[in-house]
Amino acid sequence: MTGTTGTPGTPAPFTADDYKARMDRAAATAADAGLAGLLVAPGPDLIWLTGYQPVATERLTVLVLAAGQEPVLVVPTLEAPDAERAAGASALTLRDWSDGKDPYAATAPLLDVDGRFGISDNSWAMHLLGFQNELPNTSYVSLTEALPMLRAVKDAAELERLAAAGAAADATYEEIKKVPFAGRRESDVAADLDALLRQYGHSQVDFTIVGSGPNGANPHHEAGDRVIKDGDMVVLDFGGLLHGYGSDTSRTVHVGEPDAEEQRVHDIVREAQEAGCRAARPGAACQDVDRAARAVIADAGHGEHFIHRTGHGIGVTTHEPPYMVEGEELPLVPGMCFSVEPGIYLPGRFGVRIEDIVTVTDDGVRRLNSTPRELAIVN
Amino acid sequence: MTGTTGTPGTPAPFTADDYKARMDRAAATAADAGLAGLLVAPGPDLIWLTGYQPVATERLTVLVLAAGQEPVLVVPTLEAPDAERAAGASALTLRDWSDGKDPYAATAPLLDVDGRFGISDNSWAMHLLGFQNELPNTSYVSLTEALPMLRAVKDAAELERLAAAGAAADATYEEIKKVPFAGRRESDVAADLDALLRQYGHSQVDFTIVGSGPNGANPHHEAGDRVIKDGDMVVLDFGGLLHGYGSDTSRTVHVGEPDAEEQRVHDIVREAQEAGCRAARPGAACQDVDRAARAVIADAGHGEHFIHRTGHGIGVTTHEPPYMVEGEELPLVPGMCFSVEPGIYLPGRFGVRIEDIVTVTDDGVRRLNSTPRELAIVN
Repeated sequence: MTGTTGTPGTPAPFTADDYKARMDRAAATAADAGLAGLLVAPGPDLIWLTGYQPVATERLTVLVLAAGQEPVLVVPTLEAPDAERAAGASALTLRDWSDGKDPYAATAPLLDVDGRFGISDNSWAMHLLGFQNELPNTSYVSLTEALPMLRAVKDAAELERLAAAGAAADATYEEIKKVPFAGRRESDVAADLDALLRQYGHSQVDFTIVGSGPNGANPHHEAGDRVIKDGDMVVLDFGGLLHGYGSDTSRTVHVGEPDAEEQRVHDIVREAQEAGCRAARPGAACQDVDRAARAVIADAGHGEHFIHRTGHGIGVTTHEPPYMVEGEELPLVPGMCFSVEPGIYLPGRFGVRIEDIVTVTDDGVRRLNSTPRELAIVN
Repeated sequence: MTGTTGTPGTPAPFTADDYKARMDRAAATAADAGLAGLLVAPGPDLIWLTGYQPVATERLTVLVLAAGQEPVLVVPTLEAPDAERAAGASALTLRDWSDGKDPYAATAPLLDVDGRFGISDNSWAMHLLGFQNELPNTSYVSLTEALPMLRAVKDAAELERLAAAGAAADATYEEIKKVPFAGRRESDVAADLDALLRQYGHSQVDFTIVGSGPNGANPHHEAGDRVIKDGDMVVLDFGGLLHGYGSDTSRTVHVGEPDAEEQRVHDIVREAQEAGCRAARPGAACQDVDRAARAVIADAGHGEHFIHRTGHGIGVTTHEPPYMVEGEELPLVPGMCFSVEPGIYLPGRFGVRIEDIVTVTDDGVRRLNSTPRELAIVN
């Protein structure tokens, strides 16, 4: 870690032993939860457990984990050479199946015929149906519902990566404030954000939201052809992966001096973001973070203008469980990492969002983003 | 269409009426198949039916189609503004749900409580489990298994787009033969392919495989750091989207003069590819295409070196059902479009693959790629 202005050093890659430890822990946790095992699909679960990163397709790829059983990765024959090169490959057994064969029948002997299994949230429905048809006495629960904590608590090596990603996002924000906004298109500023994230070490950029003026009132607006004007509020929300772990930060800037209402709305969001962070500590529930941030905005009369949850987990993806949302009673634990990102969206006018990634400590949280949250003036 | 050397003209966009006709037909076909309706997830099914193209996430987005019922698109509240802008939005009813609410409970009133539903192959398993839990007497089948023909037969407007994408891929191949190969990395040639596909009108490039020498023996190798040498066989396989429809072609070239065995293996694959195309006609089964191509390779003593199916459908994605694979008995129908792409892979040595997209006509197929299939010599 070289701080917020340089490219951080490269951490040692995760080894087959690291992946083995994760797979062992996942299998043991599943057994403790009364599950016969886990069916892990391509995507973040598989990346975290094995380092293997195939594209999810109609061809079945599934990691079968069960306590007291060797991990087995079932892969299409023509993808076996790629699977063999994964960092965690030596900690598991590969079993391949060829086009024209039935992959569910090929996997069934690895499964308890009337067991209950956790399955990756994003596994394709056709694969779940394939298992349900092949073994009609089995039952399934989504991995996040069954084992919400599986990837939620980050260890020191993961925290180091998340902190490096956060520092790179901070460096990007400090630089983007210096570029011209007025007279350029949102997509031009988005391209600057993309280039800066990569310059500061990101290998992948997942989103570069630039929501100017009324576009800022749509939280899912990305960046379009609108030419930014003097007097615009501009929501910036950007992130991606650095050393395999995510960054995600938002700041709202203003082109020229804001008026009193713009400043007031920004102040409310900033206070809500701080309230959310203050509510986050070991033993609090995820929903407490949402409630604390939402209360500030509701008390200020803007409850109906905060139309999304307050945050989401972050790790090998920029967006993952657990969610800081009403109804999520999962208690916070040191090492959990998530966004705190309240917003106010005034349709047809402007939006404000402020977001930091935080990690839960023994008595609160530590922010992995540390740039000022005051309303910055840009040109 | 301006032929193989220019950028084709832009076809008229699909209208809300076009999407309404597709949704009506899908609902009617589902009813004919004994289904209570269809649950359509973000991805190719939703793009084809509505023009709406959100990212699939843990937040439920689902189009509910049932005969005699208005199409309803259930979306997260914060994505509703994007959904409203979809080309097919005026032909359906939007129903949104907010973070913290149960989206399955919100969708359940639209569903027959003990119906059988087709669900998109790539719907997230957590969403299927959500419906199964909410309505325990419902049952599900993957959309491809239930309605394999839904998107398989292309109409004239779709064929025009696929032909334009094929022509752009052909133009790319003619140009790539002129670039230097020897002494450059695979990734350099891949970048050339990417640039050429875009130059010839592609809005999205999905893959640019450059498998030189032994890398060509791994059909899923993309493009790496290997420096291409004189004497290498090089598998080229590239495609993407143009006007929303896919291209996908493969040719194998040789740096300098091939030796007798290289030429012989290439001749076998070329003959297999022609046999596959000859076997494709109305009334033949998908598996007949695979069998015809495979027989040529097996007869030549290389059966064990052809380790994948012969082809896949193509449309709003570069890779979709139906599959030309042993066991697929679906009969071919005029307007179906798919790849015919046999290969021979000699581990540690080299690979050869030749691929054209074809469309079934009244009495055979028409190739949408028309560049020569002879082994081309490059520098």
